Amino acid sequence: MSKYDKPILVFQTDFTYAEGAVSSMYGVVKTVDRELEIMDGTHQIPQYDTWSASYRLYQSLQFWPEGTIYVSVVDPGVGTKRRACVAKTVDGYYVVTPDNGSLTHVKKFIGIESVREIDETVNRLRGKGTEGVAIFHGRDLFGYTAARLASGIIDFEGVGPEYPVEEIVEHPIYEPEVKPGWVKGIFEINDPNFGNLWTNIPLKKFEEAGFAYGDMVDVSICCEGEERFAQKVLFHQSFGYAKKGEPMIYNNELMKVAMAVSQGSLCKQYDLSYGAEWTVTFMK
Amino acid sequence: MSKYDKPILVFQTDFTYAEGAVSSMYGVVKTVDRELEIMDGTHQIPQYDTWSASYRLYQSLQFWPEGTIYVSVVDPGVGTKRRACVAKTVDGYYVVTPDNGSLTHVKKFIGIESVREIDETVNRLRGKGTEGVAIFHGRDLFGYTAARLASGIIDFEGVGPEYPVEEIVEHPIYEPEVKPGWVKGIFEINDPNFGNLWTNIPLKKFEEAGFAYGDMVDVSICCEGEERFAQKVLFHQSFGYAKKGEPMIYNNELMKVAMAVSQGSLCKQYDLSYGAEWTVTFMK
Amino acid sequence: MSKYDKPILVFQTDFTYAEGAVSSMYGVVKTVDRELEIMDGTHQIPQYDTWSASYRLYQSLQFWPEGTIYVSVVDPGVGTKRRACVAKTVDGYYVVTPDNGSLTHVKKFIGIESVREIDETVNRLRGKGTEGVAIFHGRDLFGYTAARLASGIIDFEGVGPEYPVEEIVEHPIYEPEVKPGWVKGIFEINDPNFGNLWTNIPLKKFEEAGFAYGDMVDVSICCEGEERFAQKVLFHQSFGYAKKGEPMIYNNELMKVAMAVSQGSLCKQYDLSYGAEWTVTFMK
Repeated sequence: MSKYDKPILVFQTDFTYAEGAVSSMYGVVKTVDRELEIMDGTHQIPQYDTWSASYRLYQSLQFWPEGTIYVSVVDPGVGTKRRACVAKTVDGYYVVTPDNGSLTHVKKFIGIESVREIDETVNRLRGKGTEGVAIFHGRDLFGYTAARLASGIIDFEGVGPEYPVEEIVEHPIYEPEVKPGWVKGIFEINDPNFGNLWTNIPLKKFEEAGFAYGDMVDVSICCEGEERFAQKVLFHQSFGYAKKGEPMIYNNELMKVAMAVSQGSLCKQYDLSYGAEWTVTFMK
Repeated sequence: MSKYDKPILVFQTDFTYAEGAVSSMYGVVKTVDRELEIMDGTHQIPQYDTWSASYRLYQSLQFWPEGTIYVSVVDPGVGTKRRACVAKTVDGYYVVTPDNGSLTHVKKFIGIESVREIDETVNRLRGKGTEGVAIFHGRDLFGYTAARLASGIIDFEGVGPEYPVEEIVEHPIYEPEVKPGWVKGIFEINDPNFGNLWTNIPLKKFEEAGFAYGDMVDVSICCEGEERFAQKVLFHQSFGYAKKGEPMIYNNELMKVAMAVSQGSLCKQYDLSYGAEWTVTFMK
Repeated sequence: MSKYDKPILVFQTDFTYAEGAVSSMYGVVKTVDRELEIMDGTHQIPQYDTWSASYRLYQSLQFWPEGTIYVSVVDPGVGTKRRACVAKTVDGYYVVTPDNGSLTHVKKFIGIESVREIDETVNRLRGKGTEGVAIFHGRDLFGYTAARLASGIIDFEGVGPEYPVEEIVEHPIYEPEVKPGWVKGIFEINDPNFGNLWTNIPLKKFEEAGFAYGDMVDVSICCEGEERFAQKVLFHQSFGYAKKGEPMIYNNELMKVAMAVSQGSLCKQYDLSYGAEWTVTFMK
């Protein structure tokens, strides 16, 4: 088996790089098989936020080569009874993760073919004084199992017993409401760097409702029903079409309707955030 | 073509690692050619700051092996008419970047042999639902084109049409004034981690003006002509020669005169920053 | 020599990724030998904190393959007379670091077989305008020497002259006091991301003193003798056993007693920190 027959391992966690956790986890992978290729997805998922973990998986997974193994460790329930699993998608990727909502978007928008619970009696790091450690499954369970799978030491069956895909833990997903000249959705995630907010409204539905690039659109943003933002906002292809500091509506990298402030931060400038309580209505 | 015949790809952006953008961009590269080697330059260029992008390119590029392809995506004009390009330096490196000032230092201090505009009709990611996306050229254009170039799928001519090097967008560069015992320059960049400030004054000119390690130097720092700092400061080889918490003048990693606080932050301690409005005068 | 005969280089520094320093350092490594494999340990060691550097080395080193070369650059004395060295551990790893306390834990808890001072007349980057630079040993000395060692250009003897292991600079290490039903230690480090605090008390000693999972334990935390926290706290296997927002005692990834707030930050919630002045007493 040559190096390039072995899939890439991409990691996302809420560990940050601030201490030695990522290093220890990656060291375990390299000790299983020196040839394995490790890539950083991100280690800055908001702490304990399995919704964001789920969204980032969905956002990035499809751009990696088929067969890629994505390891996602956002794990508030580490050491308790939540399942540790490996899911195989219908398009041939693997996700190694606690089954705690982190598979929500992959299951709904990509599709999971089958899922197996990691058998800790086989697929757990031994030695190096780690037998009694219950709190670092990224290193001792998820990274280790992913490495064994990538290396060919185990195959997918070797992960552990299969369980029904229907039992995978899911967060609720909200669908937008669409009428001619009127669309209501939620902000389902942000870009924490640029301060953009991404809705759950596909561009296609937005265009079907009659909105087109160049339109000035009436936007109302509410949090728990209370209005926080009400303005006419330009809808256009990219940020450069709005003046610096002005809000705008655009089509994001996943072909969904999003809002930004040109060269600024929408979240900070208007004190907005995301979640089911944050609704946004667009009117012609 | 063996793996090591393919140049390294180094990436710098203002994306941070906070969400899935870097992961998606790198996934595209690996999907073009699994063998390509990706390195993080930095993903923490200050947002929209094409000056910093330019400076960091100049600071780091030369230390990589000849032939390295540096991808720089700080792109406030994404999706508008600014050119997307690949520049070839006189010493054999490639820079893939929006032509928006990010090439300023490389052009002036290293030299650009030729530059080509990326032909989007050829060198743009297709499929995966990305056709209508105008805001993520890091993933869909720059990363993708750099990967094709590194992989040998296209050669430099295959990037797109050449245009005159003279047309490359540049920021103004300020030269220091030097007299015997007197040098005036600007702080042109900082070290955002340690809080150091780097001037545009080469050590060589500073020494020609009569300054030497061990000197106590009169320093005046002004912002828009108003004095913000006036002290006698030690000029020495390294930080350890000053007491903890004291400002000092030193020779930085690019052989230019810089200022720091030993084991502290000059920027924070004295509320200083960088840019053409920040002048610094050294007097014997 | 094939690529996989060459050891991995893992880097930890206090540089952050905020500017071009890491990129330049890695570029030098790749210029020495394109085949070398570079991994990020972390670049977020607290600035100038050689204690944390020492702890993170100890925390992570053992999980990497034998022979791995760990480069640690937290170097407040850069350019002064402190030694630059390569230490070889008794279990076959190499650490390239300033000899400034960064080897404390590796020496005490793993063991150092021999140590050599880097000979700057041989193992220092030349050219690229770096001859007069005294402040960037990460790039010019440590990274460069580590690359030469990993590549086989020099062997361990080629680093420079050996000196007695006893001369290695060490921070003081504090031992816990243990009596039946009573254990007193210090918080020796934190997890800066999750806000956990790790004591110097091995789980084994804690259990020998009579503490067991499921116990409610009287905890008193003092800073310089003044009590800052006094509560009954649950001792259990993992975070999920405590209610969200409640403090708990657990066994950390290095089999030492630690404290956390379930899905919160102990450090922030109770304004606690670590160091010899932070004592913690556990009573049945």
